[in-house]
Amino acid sequence: MTARRHRVGVVGATGAVGSVTLGLLRAHGFEDVRVFASARSAGRRLGAWTVEEATPEALARGDVDVFLFSVGTSASRALVPHAVAGGALVVDKSSAYRLEPGVPLVVPEVNGARALEHDGIVANPNCCTIPLTCVLKPLHDEAGLVRVRVATYQSMSGAGAKSMERLRTEPQEDHDLLLEWEFDGEEFDEESKLRDETRKILELPGLPIQATCVRVPVMVGHAEAVWVETEDELPPARAREILARAPSVRYEEFPSPGKARGIDDVLVGRIRRDPTVDRGLALFLACDNLRKGAALNAIQIAKLVLDRAPVGAA
Amino acid sequence: MTARRHRVGVVGATGAVGSVTLGLLRAHGFEDVRVFASARSAGRRLGAWTVEEATPEALARGDVDVFLFSVGTSASRALVPHAVAGGALVVDKSSAYRLEPGVPLVVPEVNGARALEHDGIVANPNCCTIPLTCVLKPLHDEAGLVRVRVATYQSMSGAGAKSMERLRTEPQEDHDLLLEWEFDGEEFDEESKLRDETRKILELPGLPIQATCVRVPVMVGHAEAVWVETEDELPPARAREILARAPSVRYEEFPSPGKARGIDDVLVGRIRRDPTVDRGLALFLACDNLRKGAALNAIQIAKLVLDRAPVGAA
Repeated sequence: MTARRHRVGVVGATGAVGSVTLGLLRAHGFEDVRVFASARSAGRRLGAWTVEEATPEALARGDVDVFLFSVGTSASRALVPHAVAGGALVVDKSSAYRLEPGVPLVVPEVNGARALEHDGIVANPNCCTIPLTCVLKPLHDEAGLVRVRVATYQSMSGAGAKSMERLRTEPQEDHDLLLEWEFDGEEFDEESKLRDETRKILELPGLPIQATCVRVPVMVGHAEAVWVETEDELPPARAREILARAPSVRYEEFPSPGKARGIDDVLVGRIRRDPTVDRGLALFLACDNLRKGAALNAIQIAKLVLDRAPVGAA
Repeated sequence: MTARRHRVGVVGATGAVGSVTLGLLRAHGFEDVRVFASARSAGRRLGAWTVEEATPEALARGDVDVFLFSVGTSASRALVPHAVAGGALVVDKSSAYRLEPGVPLVVPEVNGARALEHDGIVANPNCCTIPLTCVLKPLHDEAGLVRVRVATYQSMSGAGAKSMERLRTEPQEDHDLLLEWEFDGEEFDEESKLRDETRKILELPGLPIQATCVRVPVMVGHAEAVWVETEDELPPARAREILARAPSVRYEEFPSPGKARGIDDVLVGRIRRDPTVDRGLALFLACDNLRKGAALNAIQIAKLVLDRAPVGAA
């Protein structure tokens, strides 16, 4: 791994995604790294780093090439514009900018070229959207997607460090499935994100897609049961062949969060015909939601943009 | 609750379903109860009972009116015929007889009348099939089922007492989704059971239905994400109305295993349009797999048969 000269700022470094980001940056050649968080954590030691407070002034100073944000939506809305004003590229993990027209929403293997059209911000998709689009894109290119249904099995780490702690301390007998996202009358915001983001990334604004999102008492790793219908005939063996050679996708007969934990690829398996319709497939996928579902995808976006179109003072 | 004169034998009394059965029998008026298990447990005290060995001779003796079996498939195959030969009604929880022609497979609220056609054995369906048919039957009667897709979230207690112990002792960080059923090339036996049993109970032998079965690290309570398409238009509000008054079904906005635990009803909620098709609905259900999913359904079958058509020496 060649060392990179780019100066990276990790904002929200003390959270679940932030700490995985710090672990991955060195492996990806980034050595000039600074860490930022709220006033509460400022001054705290975090491995080799001392946490700096993420003030508008600190972010606008122009001495960082790329900021990787993994903070809440309102914090992103408040701080990202200052980082952009300072000339940095921002890769933002919150949902603040994902659906904003003109802001690229990027999974590098799926629509990487869009990242280069950024105007300072590239949005990093939802942790379920990323693995889903990695799997849907090659199927769409081959046979054309007609409709998609997804039931998710999302781990507690997707809800942040506090939820992980709750899972650790709660008696095992009390663990339950959680349906705790914001509810907008008919669906969870998590479900509308999965639909709208998938449509934007695949550039299929009318794609019929519905999700049922469920959080399961697993610490790390998300899974999804997916039903896909295609325009053209797509036998399961052919789908498996296509997915096995798709970028960042690995075929695994029985994918699970445990098998996906700590690896970069999206695991996909259980690929079989959906006998209830013509040209239907069922499949199951699993992904480390903190890596490809979050931190890794952000780093890949940063590398893609920095390597092809350096920004800021770099 | 009126006391019942019927003599009940619980076979497999030391297992997860067996012990819930014992707890429920008294509440259902059964006071003359004997408990049977393998030679290993014979002589052991189990609450007020002393475990008797489930030998062919003991079961064929003719001094029990109804046996509730919850043992493995091969043990059922070996022992059930002796109990029937002794003149008893057998309600069998294993998959040994479920799909056998002539053996009624019964969910009392759905196809209770079939139980009266028994020839000694009534089969008790799979723990996911029971709540699913409780929900599908009223929808079918109203609008006609066209196709059904199900993704399950099944608790560890469905895999028996040993799996529950494993969940109790394994570090929380290691909990994973388990895809551990017998795999028949394309699907798990659990998935083909769910399909074939649903078709038999609803008497829709050609019903297009597919399941993806997943075990989650929850101790008790199964959930299912369901997509249904119907022949006739069925608005979500109307589906909710029908389900809210269906027997053994209770409307709950966000059903979960934790909410279903310890209660008799199947919880159903999240009833909404499936916008990817005409006349499609999505919904979510949860059920105590040890009660309505197993022990309670068996007791209900026994009551239904004993009250309307006494068998054996009763």
